[in-house]
Amino acid sequence: MSAIDVLVARLPEGRILTDPEVIDSYARDRTFCEPGKPLGVVLATSRDDVVETMRWATEHRVPVVPRGAGTGLAGGATAGDGSIVLSLAKMTAIRELSPGDEIAVVEPGVINADLDRAARAHGLMFAPDPSSYEISTIGGNLATNAGGLRCVKYGVTRDSTLGLEVVLADGRILNTGRRTMKGVTGYDLTGLFVGSEGTLGVITAATVRLRRAPAQPPATFAAEFPSLRDAGAAVSAIIAAGCQPSLMELLDRATLQAIDDMRSIGLEDATMAMLIGQSDVPDGQAVVSRMEELCMANGATFVAVSSSPQETDDLIGVRRMAYQAKERLGACLVEDVCVPRSVLPEMITAIEEAAARHGVRICTVAHAGDGNLHPVFIFDHGTAEPPAEVWAAADEVFTRALELGGTLTGEHGVGMLKRRWLALESGPVVQEVSAGIKGVFDPLGILNPGKAI
Amino acid sequence: MSAIDVLVARLPEGRILTDPEVIDSYARDRTFCEPGKPLGVVLATSRDDVVETMRWATEHRVPVVPRGAGTGLAGGATAGDGSIVLSLAKMTAIRELSPGDEIAVVEPGVINADLDRAARAHGLMFAPDPSSYEISTIGGNLATNAGGLRCVKYGVTRDSTLGLEVVLADGRILNTGRRTMKGVTGYDLTGLFVGSEGTLGVITAATVRLRRAPAQPPATFAAEFPSLRDAGAAVSAIIAAGCQPSLMELLDRATLQAIDDMRSIGLEDATMAMLIGQSDVPDGQAVVSRMEELCMANGATFVAVSSSPQETDDLIGVRRMAYQAKERLGACLVEDVCVPRSVLPEMITAIEEAAARHGVRICTVAHAGDGNLHPVFIFDHGTAEPPAEVWAAADEVFTRALELGGTLTGEHGVGMLKRRWLALESGPVVQEVSAGIKGVFDPLGILNPGKAI
Repeated sequence: MSAIDVLVARLPEGRILTDPEVIDSYARDRTFCEPGKPLGVVLATSRDDVVETMRWATEHRVPVVPRGAGTGLAGGATAGDGSIVLSLAKMTAIRELSPGDEIAVVEPGVINADLDRAARAHGLMFAPDPSSYEISTIGGNLATNAGGLRCVKYGVTRDSTLGLEVVLADGRILNTGRRTMKGVTGYDLTGLFVGSEGTLGVITAATVRLRRAPAQPPATFAAEFPSLRDAGAAVSAIIAAGCQPSLMELLDRATLQAIDDMRSIGLEDATMAMLIGQSDVPDGQAVVSRMEELCMANGATFVAVSSSPQETDDLIGVRRMAYQAKERLGACLVEDVCVPRSVLPEMITAIEEAAARHGVRICTVAHAGDGNLHPVFIFDHGTAEPPAEVWAAADEVFTRALELGGTLTGEHGVGMLKRRWLALESGPVVQEVSAGIKGVFDPLGILNPGKAI
Repeated sequence: MSAIDVLVARLPEGRILTDPEVIDSYARDRTFCEPGKPLGVVLATSRDDVVETMRWATEHRVPVVPRGAGTGLAGGATAGDGSIVLSLAKMTAIRELSPGDEIAVVEPGVINADLDRAARAHGLMFAPDPSSYEISTIGGNLATNAGGLRCVKYGVTRDSTLGLEVVLADGRILNTGRRTMKGVTGYDLTGLFVGSEGTLGVITAATVRLRRAPAQPPATFAAEFPSLRDAGAAVSAIIAAGCQPSLMELLDRATLQAIDDMRSIGLEDATMAMLIGQSDVPDGQAVVSRMEELCMANGATFVAVSSSPQETDDLIGVRRMAYQAKERLGACLVEDVCVPRSVLPEMITAIEEAAARHGVRICTVAHAGDGNLHPVFIFDHGTAEPPAEVWAAADEVFTRALELGGTLTGEHGVGMLKRRWLALESGPVVQEVSAGIKGVFDPLGILNPGKAI
């Protein structure tokens, strides 16, 4: 009996897909990373399915590639030849939601926005909100330590994770963390698993922290600037004034142009950057007025302040159109550097210079309050892989980000895509101890090999 | 040449203390845990001193007990026979303070309050504020993942730590983390070291996040309740109303009595609990009025609202007197359980029952917003170790905290003191993987042996 037949026999009926065409769609994420040919796909519906799969994988030395909805942007769920894909997308139970303690216990297949909606019914929210929140799973968010638009105020996924239930490579079950707001018993295994991209174990449940949802809709502004430096100065001034925006997004000229080409937003020739900000506190309009003043004081040519939910939707809609507008232009390599906030203008300038030098179109959106930039490198749909000039430009962007005290990835993860630059950021000692930790949890190296570290 | 003579020869002059009387004071923290006889004390003034010490310790297989100011409450810095104490207290440089990026790079010997004051000069603050903040070091705060009064709003030490410089057991230097607000490159080694109580490496610098200091003094109230259950209900109501207090402390009758005995606070016979709260937002007085209403609606018999800085000091002063008042009563075993907030009244009731059953005086103060309780077990100054009835009562308290979904320690750490209960909270798999991680960083087991895990 082949290895896969053994697994088919051990799991309840209907848990495994083996049709090569179907498998292929489960072997990739949203990157262009080409997968190999996995043996099959396990559609786990319970922790027991995961335990059985991991025991089998250990016995048969089969690599396991865990995945959620496959919305990743770093090739973290790209499956190789002879591996088994372990989909957690059908584990969708919200096992518990406790308004009094402001926590929930959720399975990894729960869609981010579904958890948020469940929490909102109790006046709470699940703060992490990656752009993919309507389609990405909590499991994927945990695997990458996902950020989002709100994290400028509320922190990233790790900041909302209190405890985990994890199935280890050999099928043992590890319960980390706690249900309490604080706790310091033992090592922070919870934090270690968050962001480990499926290389240390398979998360089958998470105890997450919910936060009080603001009672009022956020107050919103959008400001136009004649230069990126002015916009960057406004960001610094807003942070320094203690405005605590709940969202602060920066769009460069190339992005605004792409959006304007798709649907006219009346883009002025002189507008080189737009800053969109929100405040969700009770006196949000006053905070937005203060942010408006700071934009004007730092060179803004025009500031629109929303006076209705419809206007807010329109302003935020500009930001939401960004990816769609870029996808019209060609295939996209979406990058994710993060720099200290004070050097945001320098970083954007470096991106523009790299674009010009290598003749590559790059559109940049930034979670400006966090210094997290998403330069999107556009290339011809026809090529499967980004062409050499894209890699050359990306190389320059990564190198400059690190020179400026930044990091390769603010929220997408390393996956397969950024491993080629990893040594630039992580020195040999980090790599040695990371390999050591990997060895503790996965001595056979079967958990998502070739990713993250 | 003896091992210690080798070290004396290798380090710059004056770095090592060997006088047994002097050593003894460096071999203990604030617990009654009796130390052994260390070989000596290294007073490190630089990373190089630490590297030299660790290389020597690895060569000679000498256990190393890192320490800051020795204010720990769990025996984490208790040094055993034949060990070397490595004091980081003289590494006091604030290497960098960048207001624009809201970060600082600090050495481990910096006193918590000194960093906070340096930040305040730029309108910023260092949020973690353990009660010992005027005397405890950042290094010790990092080792225990210290909390404090403000952490109900601003999070614990780990939440303010972005990156670390660590000297490993063999003298290699590990740089973890980043200078940016977000970053997901590789495993979260920073979070792993925070709270690891010196068992994985010696932190020689930390990049910490600063936060905007509130522009106005906090608004403050103190409410008296006829029962703990009422006070607990008020806490829940305040959280549920989204008041986001920046401080919320609960004092039980035994604590209030001890304070009143020391310095009269006009304690009423019917007052069984006091809740002290603050809001540091711009409209703090309005928030405090709301909290006052919620206290009254939940049975408070009297609520004092501060109308001046002096009155605020008086109200907060009651809380600050708590430990001093208890120390007058006898020797103190200070405990640190944390439970889900909703079961705070049950937990306090369990503490009172344990006190009555075992004839032990227990005074409890709680960081109520976090569900973190400090029951202080009072016993006779004459006995070196807590007597059997204290341990029996503590045992009941810990067991009940775990039954209620809580943890053994919210912010003090496990140290030596709580290892006897560790297995109750951490299952065998947690203990196995924790030992594995320890082995990656410290294969010879020389780093603070017998602590934390």
